[in-house]
Amino acid sequence: MNYKIDNLQYCKWSRKIFEINREAGLDAIHVTIVYHEDFNEHLNEIQKWKKYFKNNSDLIFLGKSFKDIKKANTENKTAIFFGFQNCSPIEDNIELVEKVHELGCRFMQLTYNNQSLLATGCYEKNDSGVTNFGREVIKEMNRVGIVIDMSHSAEKSTLDAIEISEKPIAITHANPSFWHAAKRNKSSELLKILNDSGGILGLSLYPHHLKNSTNCTLENFCEMIARTAEIMDIKNIGIGSDLCLDQPDEIVEWMRNGTWSKGKNFGEGSKNKPGFPTQPKWFEDARGFKNLEKGLKKVGFSDDETNGILGNNWYNFYKTI
Amino acid sequence: MNYKIDNLQYCKWSRKIFEINREAGLDAIHVTIVYHEDFNEHLNEIQKWKKYFKNNSDLIFLGKSFKDIKKANTENKTAIFFGFQNCSPIEDNIELVEKVHELGCRFMQLTYNNQSLLATGCYEKNDSGVTNFGREVIKEMNRVGIVIDMSHSAEKSTLDAIEISEKPIAITHANPSFWHAAKRNKSSELLKILNDSGGILGLSLYPHHLKNSTNCTLENFCEMIARTAEIMDIKNIGIGSDLCLDQPDEIVEWMRNGTWSKGKNFGEGSKNKPGFPTQPKWFEDARGFKNLEKGLKKVGFSDDETNGILGNNWYNFYKTI
Repeated sequence: MNYKIDNLQYCKWSRKIFEINREAGLDAIHVTIVYHEDFNEHLNEIQKWKKYFKNNSDLIFLGKSFKDIKKANTENKTAIFFGFQNCSPIEDNIELVEKVHELGCRFMQLTYNNQSLLATGCYEKNDSGVTNFGREVIKEMNRVGIVIDMSHSAEKSTLDAIEISEKPIAITHANPSFWHAAKRNKSSELLKILNDSGGILGLSLYPHHLKNSTNCTLENFCEMIARTAEIMDIKNIGIGSDLCLDQPDEIVEWMRNGTWSKGKNFGEGSKNKPGFPTQPKWFEDARGFKNLEKGLKKVGFSDDETNGILGNNWYNFYKTI
Repeated sequence: MNYKIDNLQYCKWSRKIFEINREAGLDAIHVTIVYHEDFNEHLNEIQKWKKYFKNNSDLIFLGKSFKDIKKANTENKTAIFFGFQNCSPIEDNIELVEKVHELGCRFMQLTYNNQSLLATGCYEKNDSGVTNFGREVIKEMNRVGIVIDMSHSAEKSTLDAIEISEKPIAITHANPSFWHAAKRNKSSELLKILNDSGGILGLSLYPHHLKNSTNCTLENFCEMIARTAEIMDIKNIGIGSDLCLDQPDEIVEWMRNGTWSKGKNFGEGSKNKPGFPTQPKWFEDARGFKNLEKGLKKVGFSDDETNGILGNNWYNFYKTI
């Protein structure tokens, strides 16, 4: 059985997008339900999702374990796995880790760009690694079954998390920096260590992570995957598209600034390009998975390897959660 | 005019303690109203203080500026200045800095032992200094008039705060590590830099910060002050007793563990001595200021210098807020 999984989307959700994901054949997606929201604000987001599930029960349902991916495949639906891009919902309270898991959370970034109570983000000047509270939280995430996601974290913090965690961790959406030296992309050294620990990398289709941004070609993206497969086991590579379909630009402002600044931070963007960037033509939405399939085969990946990258590898990773 | 100021107390407040502080002649105290409480929980603490002020209006009132110290002196009362030992009440929201100031806050530690969103605490393994959010918050604290207190912070974070802040900062309650090498005490190098920036040190009477703990002698404590005055301008030295009168031991457990750990951390204590330590006989409560006065004169401080250390230096510092 082959599964298709996009392990990071943060869209302005609508029936249209759920339909696109089905048309793309996605059996599962990991969706970002919160960035900087605290526990109670995160409850509000879950309420919204309850409505999505009710109103689109023919297309989606809440995924809780790898078994739901198989179920989704059988029922021609997409299993939705909840994730957080920042650790704000657990506030400063270790007990909330179990609570957010009960409410559906399966992935949590320890930090989003800035320093959090758990670890350092990739936009800080210095990186002190995983904190005292961070160690406790990793242990608890391991225990209850929430994946540690270090996509927006700084390097030492990521290495610490790999070392401390007793389960494999994930970088759900980032690319190798050997290909495109964005702050958010990851060094080869780190990717090798991630790989050796059984961790997984979800490759991102977000233009700021792509060489030549919006103009990145399918060929070039797939060549990058081939090169990544030289430093990582191909079984530890998947897709985390980081699609933000239909989101208005004030959302990317919120993602970058939360409530922490009186000024305006442009993150991966710039003053002249503050908004969401335009997706490459060959990956305007999840239907681009079909282009990826062709592109991967063209650079020499076998059917098995291609199917692994497009979903089976994530499926196997979900078994470890 | 001479003022007596104890610039850190965290007691289980009662009329009895307000009377003791009056008997000690204290014109002002900086009181810790919260540790790990979030904004709403901090509002609850303010409600409690409103009752204290109402029921003890002959003894105390809320202090808002240095003028209230003079007023307290004239009216034979103690002005109470609010402070936070951790930055939890501002959560991750820059706008809350102004709000907590409006509600009375005049001192805020950037961190309490562990990493916060603003800086690193002295109990962390690594210290990455003041964070992105921390820089924004320092600017805002300067603007609205809240003193940056680095008593429980790690060294690089403290040096960063001194550099970033446009106003002098405070270490409201700690001792020099040359005298007693507790994690919470401060290096001579740091104290010199603090001093050169116009910052102030409040010397602590908390046994874990004292040489020989509970058995520390008045003479030895005053000799330490004399040695501190060799590396700092005497005008930048005051008292922040860290008195925790009548607090039950579960409070020190809360201070140390908040909600961040499933285990038990003993902080400056130990498994065998988990509770609040016993005060030295010569400083069981604020009436010990009278002993300090004698002790300071005995080690050679002039009347002016002694009065400075016991309150006038803090009074002058308050003018800068």
